[in-house]
Amino acid sequence: MCQLLGMNANTPTDVMFSFAGLACRADEHKDGFGIAFFEDRGLRHFIDHHSARTSPVAELVKRYPIKSDNVIAHIRKATQGRVALENAHPFVRELWGRYWVFAHNGDLKDFRPRLHGAFRPVGDTDSERAFCWLMQELAKSHAGVPSVAELTRTLAELLPQPARHGTFNVLLSNGQALWARCSTHLHALERRHPFGAAQLADEDLSVDFAALTTPGDRVAVVATEPLTTGEPWSAFAPGELRVFRGGCAVA
Amino acid sequence: MCQLLGMNANTPTDVMFSFAGLACRADEHKDGFGIAFFEDRGLRHFIDHHSARTSPVAELVKRYPIKSDNVIAHIRKATQGRVALENAHPFVRELWGRYWVFAHNGDLKDFRPRLHGAFRPVGDTDSERAFCWLMQELAKSHAGVPSVAELTRTLAELLPQPARHGTFNVLLSNGQALWARCSTHLHALERRHPFGAAQLADEDLSVDFAALTTPGDRVAVVATEPLTTGEPWSAFAPGELRVFRGGCAVA
Repeated sequence: MCQLLGMNANTPTDVMFSFAGLACRADEHKDGFGIAFFEDRGLRHFIDHHSARTSPVAELVKRYPIKSDNVIAHIRKATQGRVALENAHPFVRELWGRYWVFAHNGDLKDFRPRLHGAFRPVGDTDSERAFCWLMQELAKSHAGVPSVAELTRTLAELLPQPARHGTFNVLLSNGQALWARCSTHLHALERRHPFGAAQLADEDLSVDFAALTTPGDRVAVVATEPLTTGEPWSAFAPGELRVFRGGCAVA
Repeated sequence: MCQLLGMNANTPTDVMFSFAGLACRADEHKDGFGIAFFEDRGLRHFIDHHSARTSPVAELVKRYPIKSDNVIAHIRKATQGRVALENAHPFVRELWGRYWVFAHNGDLKDFRPRLHGAFRPVGDTDSERAFCWLMQELAKSHAGVPSVAELTRTLAELLPQPARHGTFNVLLSNGQALWARCSTHLHALERRHPFGAAQLADEDLSVDFAALTTPGDRVAVVATEPLTTGEPWSAFAPGELRVFRGGCAVA
């Protein structure tokens, strides 16, 4: 199984602390890592098929305070697909003049939908296949980028279909919102004023968010397992889809 | 005007020396940089809207010996499109289960083709618009990834069309080959046994390739202007299209 990390904020925020929390789980998840940062419509996409513990690319991400309003990260333990760069999550495609970023934790059995649209997997994972199908079905459902609420309704219809084939914990973003869909393990946390201190669950690292934020800041973090102790992480129910915008869960 | 760098090799090769040569021209080209490395079908894509002189991402690329058989890099001086991450070259799209990477040096006037296919620009440059049109036309011309020779024939028909609208020096790769098309300025160099030493044209940096290579290695480098002194760079003719595979010009 892999581990997911998502961040959605109302003001560009760095994710170094949370990524450090994710990366220290990389001993078990040594088959690659990836992270994608939206900056408005633009996207930075870093992947490596080396562990986030040792990758120079991960080292850059830990040290370079890239500020973003939507982030999706993933550390991989291969289940399907070789350990290769083309199989590293998150995956990226363009649709309607927006980049879309997708990461998956889980394992789909026999999900081989007909891919007759404009999206084909480059690698050989079940995850990228599911993403290509999802993009194809989104492209058929709307003529251009719909509102976040409309997209959420479409995703609520589409996401259960691959989920019938196995575990399908998923993060998706187009830079406007972060969608998180749970099969088995997903937790979310919303940080807002008054900010306190947080301690990473797995490593001797803490941060005082009060010193780094302004009162209007709102940040939502989604992760496979809670990354910190002493903060009110909320577990998703199986099958639950949440959408985060401006640092808060919406509708 | 921007500067382009492409590399095509028969064995995964690092591009640190050539990238250093490109980056030292970044004083004039301060509006972003980008570099994409194929590793087989997989792709690493680093972009920044800061100068390659100061960007921490460029610093990583200069220090991390990423070995690749096809590389495209670009340093940007904005002509059309804001200085923003979504306008940084090279651009990436997926077609037929392969990533395609494109960078452009020049300026197209009034090239506004109808984009009725699956590819839309995310940013607002003439370059990304031309790339989306090119991908759309390739998708219409072949049912799946054709041979390099067939692709070269199709590209020889397509590339002159945007070129009628201005300067269109272009690098394109799908990981199988590197296509380079010249309007005004493009130079190529093929390094092979016996390897010698090379000296960067703009910076006090030299490298002895004999110490870093084996006799079977072949590497082709394409750049807007020759990057080194004392090596036999060959200038492209206006309108010339060359394709490099396995480190050599083919066809």
